[in-house]
Amino acid sequence: MTAAVIQGASHATLKERFLAVRSATMALCEPLETEDYIPQPVVDVSPPKWNIAHTTWFFEEFILRRFVPAYSVFDDRFAYLFNSYYNTVGDRSARDRRSLSRPTVEEIFAYRRHVDEAMSGLLGTLGDGTDHDDLAELTTLGINHEQQHQELFLSDLKFSFASEPFKPAYRSGFHPENESARGSVDRIAIGGGNFEIGHRGEGFCFDNELARHTVFLEPFEISGRCVTNSEFLEFISDGGYRTHSLWHSDGWDWIRSQDISAPLYWSNEDGEWSHFTLGGMDRLEPDAPVTHVSYYEASAYAEWSGLRLPTEFEWEAASSSLDWGQRWEWTNSAYLPYPGFRKPAGAVGEYNGKFMINQMVLRGASLATPAGHSRPTYRNFFHPHLRWQFTGIRLAR
Amino acid sequence: MTAAVIQGASHATLKERFLAVRSATMALCEPLETEDYIPQPVVDVSPPKWNIAHTTWFFEEFILRRFVPAYSVFDDRFAYLFNSYYNTVGDRSARDRRSLSRPTVEEIFAYRRHVDEAMSGLLGTLGDGTDHDDLAELTTLGINHEQQHQELFLSDLKFSFASEPFKPAYRSGFHPENESARGSVDRIAIGGGNFEIGHRGEGFCFDNELARHTVFLEPFEISGRCVTNSEFLEFISDGGYRTHSLWHSDGWDWIRSQDISAPLYWSNEDGEWSHFTLGGMDRLEPDAPVTHVSYYEASAYAEWSGLRLPTEFEWEAASSSLDWGQRWEWTNSAYLPYPGFRKPAGAVGEYNGKFMINQMVLRGASLATPAGHSRPTYRNFFHPHLRWQFTGIRLAR
Amino acid sequence: MTAAVIQGASHATLKERFLAVRSATMALCEPLETEDYIPQPVVDVSPPKWNIAHTTWFFEEFILRRFVPAYSVFDDRFAYLFNSYYNTVGDRSARDRRSLSRPTVEEIFAYRRHVDEAMSGLLGTLGDGTDHDDLAELTTLGINHEQQHQELFLSDLKFSFASEPFKPAYRSGFHPENESARGSVDRIAIGGGNFEIGHRGEGFCFDNELARHTVFLEPFEISGRCVTNSEFLEFISDGGYRTHSLWHSDGWDWIRSQDISAPLYWSNEDGEWSHFTLGGMDRLEPDAPVTHVSYYEASAYAEWSGLRLPTEFEWEAASSSLDWGQRWEWTNSAYLPYPGFRKPAGAVGEYNGKFMINQMVLRGASLATPAGHSRPTYRNFFHPHLRWQFTGIRLAR
Amino acid sequence: MTAAVIQGASHATLKERFLAVRSATMALCEPLETEDYIPQPVVDVSPPKWNIAHTTWFFEEFILRRFVPAYSVFDDRFAYLFNSYYNTVGDRSARDRRSLSRPTVEEIFAYRRHVDEAMSGLLGTLGDGTDHDDLAELTTLGINHEQQHQELFLSDLKFSFASEPFKPAYRSGFHPENESARGSVDRIAIGGGNFEIGHRGEGFCFDNELARHTVFLEPFEISGRCVTNSEFLEFISDGGYRTHSLWHSDGWDWIRSQDISAPLYWSNEDGEWSHFTLGGMDRLEPDAPVTHVSYYEASAYAEWSGLRLPTEFEWEAASSSLDWGQRWEWTNSAYLPYPGFRKPAGAVGEYNGKFMINQMVLRGASLATPAGHSRPTYRNFFHPHLRWQFTGIRLAR
Repeated sequence: MTAAVIQGASHATLKERFLAVRSATMALCEPLETEDYIPQPVVDVSPPKWNIAHTTWFFEEFILRRFVPAYSVFDDRFAYLFNSYYNTVGDRSARDRRSLSRPTVEEIFAYRRHVDEAMSGLLGTLGDGTDHDDLAELTTLGINHEQQHQELFLSDLKFSFASEPFKPAYRSGFHPENESARGSVDRIAIGGGNFEIGHRGEGFCFDNELARHTVFLEPFEISGRCVTNSEFLEFISDGGYRTHSLWHSDGWDWIRSQDISAPLYWSNEDGEWSHFTLGGMDRLEPDAPVTHVSYYEASAYAEWSGLRLPTEFEWEAASSSLDWGQRWEWTNSAYLPYPGFRKPAGAVGEYNGKFMINQMVLRGASLATPAGHSRPTYRNFFHPHLRWQFTGIRLAR
Repeated sequence: MTAAVIQGASHATLKERFLAVRSATMALCEPLETEDYIPQPVVDVSPPKWNIAHTTWFFEEFILRRFVPAYSVFDDRFAYLFNSYYNTVGDRSARDRRSLSRPTVEEIFAYRRHVDEAMSGLLGTLGDGTDHDDLAELTTLGINHEQQHQELFLSDLKFSFASEPFKPAYRSGFHPENESARGSVDRIAIGGGNFEIGHRGEGFCFDNELARHTVFLEPFEISGRCVTNSEFLEFISDGGYRTHSLWHSDGWDWIRSQDISAPLYWSNEDGEWSHFTLGGMDRLEPDAPVTHVSYYEASAYAEWSGLRLPTEFEWEAASSSLDWGQRWEWTNSAYLPYPGFRKPAGAVGEYNGKFMINQMVLRGASLATPAGHSRPTYRNFFHPHLRWQFTGIRLAR
Repeated sequence: MTAAVIQGASHATLKERFLAVRSATMALCEPLETEDYIPQPVVDVSPPKWNIAHTTWFFEEFILRRFVPAYSVFDDRFAYLFNSYYNTVGDRSARDRRSLSRPTVEEIFAYRRHVDEAMSGLLGTLGDGTDHDDLAELTTLGINHEQQHQELFLSDLKFSFASEPFKPAYRSGFHPENESARGSVDRIAIGGGNFEIGHRGEGFCFDNELARHTVFLEPFEISGRCVTNSEFLEFISDGGYRTHSLWHSDGWDWIRSQDISAPLYWSNEDGEWSHFTLGGMDRLEPDAPVTHVSYYEASAYAEWSGLRLPTEFEWEAASSSLDWGQRWEWTNSAYLPYPGFRKPAGAVGEYNGKFMINQMVLRGASLATPAGHSRPTYRNFFHPHLRWQFTGIRLAR
Repeated sequence: MTAAVIQGASHATLKERFLAVRSATMALCEPLETEDYIPQPVVDVSPPKWNIAHTTWFFEEFILRRFVPAYSVFDDRFAYLFNSYYNTVGDRSARDRRSLSRPTVEEIFAYRRHVDEAMSGLLGTLGDGTDHDDLAELTTLGINHEQQHQELFLSDLKFSFASEPFKPAYRSGFHPENESARGSVDRIAIGGGNFEIGHRGEGFCFDNELARHTVFLEPFEISGRCVTNSEFLEFISDGGYRTHSLWHSDGWDWIRSQDISAPLYWSNEDGEWSHFTLGGMDRLEPDAPVTHVSYYEASAYAEWSGLRLPTEFEWEAASSSLDWGQRWEWTNSAYLPYPGFRKPAGAVGEYNGKFMINQMVLRGASLATPAGHSRPTYRNFFHPHLRWQFTGIRLAR
């Protein structure tokens, strides 16, 4: 069983899953030059060095310091550098100052090895004592946290490479963005009524997927597949980016102030569209789902098509009928707490609740989501103008 | 029957209601010096001259130009100056360039008289022909639009006066902000189930109150009165503004970057709190409902108190049990379309739908809301950091 | 003898000159509506109300408070509001917050009358006591200070009116900008050698005109008249604004970031040039001296013409041969202290010295300079990107 | 004869001098990790990779492309990336986008070797044909250009390392900033009269040092050594940074908006001063010349001391009596063209002239200036707020 398979396997031991996820991160690093670990082109995008150090810090800070009394901290200063936002834990470096030359990449790899060894030792002892539930729970959270950063590793790196004048490829010939849209173009009809929404059962979920609760939905229809590049090109040809009545007021201001007239990474030369992919610049595949669109663009497209975006509740209610997972699909739901939502105690309580304002929910998963890191109740969220994730559009009415 | 009474009366004729609302606006102007009509201290706040010209423009643009063939436009250039945001209608002046010396205040008053005369003539003919439904509907919309700007007139002017070094009073001795909070401190329990939400019946409502639809609610409790100044002072004393775990991440960034440690207009000298009111600086009344708080502050207060803000659906479901109307009450609902929401056709279709992103819903009404301009289904909305309206906090759990 | 004549007359008494200058300011206000006194379109431009209050404050602060023991200050709060930059004197209002509704214009006029009466009383006593030299010196400084603000009153108001959508005229039919350039197009040759530069003799001068000192100049030639609009149009037609080699690096960044392709207030419709004048929009007069150009534009024009700007020393050495006074002429000299420059003691010591960095010297005078407020040694100065003064270009080689 | 010696030797052949300077640059790189070549903490500071590629580009662009018909350009895209500001030559990358991962550091080194080989071949042929003067002149310019970037390499890297949370040392134990100030504290008196200023003779100079011309100077005195750290500490203790009357208006705004109260890199912990040096954090040596001060600070210090900064003409006239070379010494002269200054033809004409606005002249040299790259007529220049060079203060009166 390869690491990549274990990463998504639920029957592996916790230690096996930990090691599989950790080595999957290292596999992501394989094509990089040392220099690629450093730049931070915009505040939202972290350098690879930061992503792989920060996920390591999570295990050191929340697990090793607590569960291994004799644990020797790798470098005290890392706690400050690689704390992303946990105010409870202590000071943290400014989010826009993550482009650092020191510690070197080699030191970060040594840091990973140091923490992996200590974690392996700790997880190998499972089965014989106290605190196992907390340890297992935090380790599982750390694993899921690292999987989130695996996806960010790719989307951040893609943005960074697209900002480089040489536009280097992450892996030559690797264009997962060009895979055709799955599912039928037909809309699926779902009857109205009360639906149970939110996570249930034994498996891991984030705090924001709870509590499971009832939502009343009117009957609705939802498209069997995501909007494709060729469909989105019709919107562009029809003047979609120049027709204010299709746009939210904030969206209209955004496309005008940022001079936006196509999805992120698209480029038009002499009438031919191409786009930047993980394999570098490539032709735009008409049948692939459109990606790297903001909520504003998703919403304007829906308005233009005479339909609308689904709510996150409609999406979840219909999910078993959908062939999802190619794109994070913008919904028309704001990211807000479910009734009965409770922040976990302690520092990990900062995980999700404090972001529940000004963001919109995306459902599904994307080509960059690690195996095993998705489920129908998963709530992703971003500000409505952001486009560097592998976002997409599914229509409803 | 005085104008102020007619403004809220539903049995008056349309012409009577039109004239009552128009003269209520003029009554608001009575205490002003010519100079007060000009400054625009920040982009969100319009000068009085703009507010009173813009509402006049609405009647000229959408009604007189259409229904009165021989109508003589007062000044062609006003359409550009006093169009707030109707992109459909034509070019418009930038929102941050409303501080103009010309046209003079006297010319704006002449503009109002010109339009009032034409509208009076037009509305006097009602009963004899075509297009009456459209005319009545648009006039009613114009009346409600002007009432919204009456409230903005006061909140904008309050902000403007507070920005003046001399801090002038709007009306000496006029401190409606100091009226004690109404209602009982006890929480009212509401059983769960399906509720009908949204406007019903014959009367006027805005497009965003439609369509009436079903929402499932869990059982909840809601406070009988709004949070008072003395309660909010406890939050401050307890370090509420310095405790990051109470705040949304965006809210924490906001209070730190803006150096915020109290509601807008509050001032502390030698331990004594006072606040700027419509009557100038005054003592802070402990039993009055706290006001001029942002959503972030409302939410942090709720977190500190161990409770939460109600959703707009809970608020509406409970509204018949509440003594509301002193403050616009922040809810924990994002401003989004109801299922079945439809934009009206034409330029008035821009009224509400294009703002349905990045804003939070407020329910109720405030001390500055004109009589007759409130109902339990009314959905007000502002960005979560804004504080210059007469906002307040009601708790739920 | 009219006030306007006395303003420039040197044989009048100090009291006569004081009153003449004060009433000349009032004459400038004559065409204004109350509303015109308020807007401040950009930070560099002060509202008329501020200009006329600030000059009044100067007399109250530096003279009446000191020389009239029983003087009753008009309003204590004005010292804060109308102090422009005298840090020594106390707190001052932020320079970008001068758009105030209160005190009203009428109160400012009352303030002027109050101060004028007290000054008249004080100056009427001259001849019988102590401190006369200081009093006369400070009054003369205050008179010259007010004359500077008379020019600013006009250039600020012109900018403000140009920013208004209605582009009102200050005085209908008043286009002093269109007067033809005086002097001969020929260049005047000046032999090299040592020249005495700086003020000499008994009359008033600013501290920055001292000390008179020797400067060695190489032989040079200087144009008999300023560059005209038609000459400047050739520069534009020849692509002057698009040819980077003509520009300073900072100038090139400035025209590109600000999208500048003509002097301030110029406008081109269907190939016809017009410009905004004190009388409103008007045709561009080809033979008038170009005006409202920055140092960057003046310098690029000179480079394009194969010549250069004179230094301030060359200008002064040649001044007796020049018919100057239509435009403030940019020189290629930075505004720096003369050898032997001394700051005056006390608050008035802030007058000029603290601005001696980052600014370029302009020599001459302009159409807006009051009679009697110019001399060959006068050193005006502005940052190199500023254009709202009546600036112009004279060439040398 | 080592490379470091040849770098400053005037009797070496052009090829020897070229190779010596090129290898001196490589020697500067010796202590760096790959990661150190990438970050650009602020727009004024270039990454090491950029500095060493840009100087290489100069030889390729201006010499190899022209004088070697068969020259094979290393990578066409580098011309765009490593052109600093030569608009004449073609497009160039934005100055604030120099933090790039690709090309890699190893590729830049290969680029240097490629160009060095071609230049060696070319310079080896000298003595037998056409164009020698141009070639020799441009190569000499390229050598001097690279020496300027050697100094920038160190000052840029120092700034970058100081921005890193770990504050790494460039070379451990290397603190040239701590060398004691040379020269006597006494002032040297220089009699007035006409002086010849500017470069003369055969050796290399930059265009801005010409033409040699006459300047009349009043008698003056100039200090025999630069202001020391202990002297500057007295200014701080005496409230120098809080006394507005010592500062230019722009300087006062600068220290307040940037919250500046000590030279760059200084840090005070429990009353003990230390500073960041090329060898990392170190104690502040009282007898070393103060460094990393802006013009504003230099000028305020001079004002506080009752003296003034010398002009660049005074400095040059006195230079033979001064033991200069430890710091770039701020003068009170703006960077402006000498009478008779002519821009060279072609792209190298952009070298100096276009920066002759908004900057102040510094004279001397610093601890980071390569041997042989200084002379009494050398005119360095920076904007008055910049501090990351090894600047210093010498007083005059």
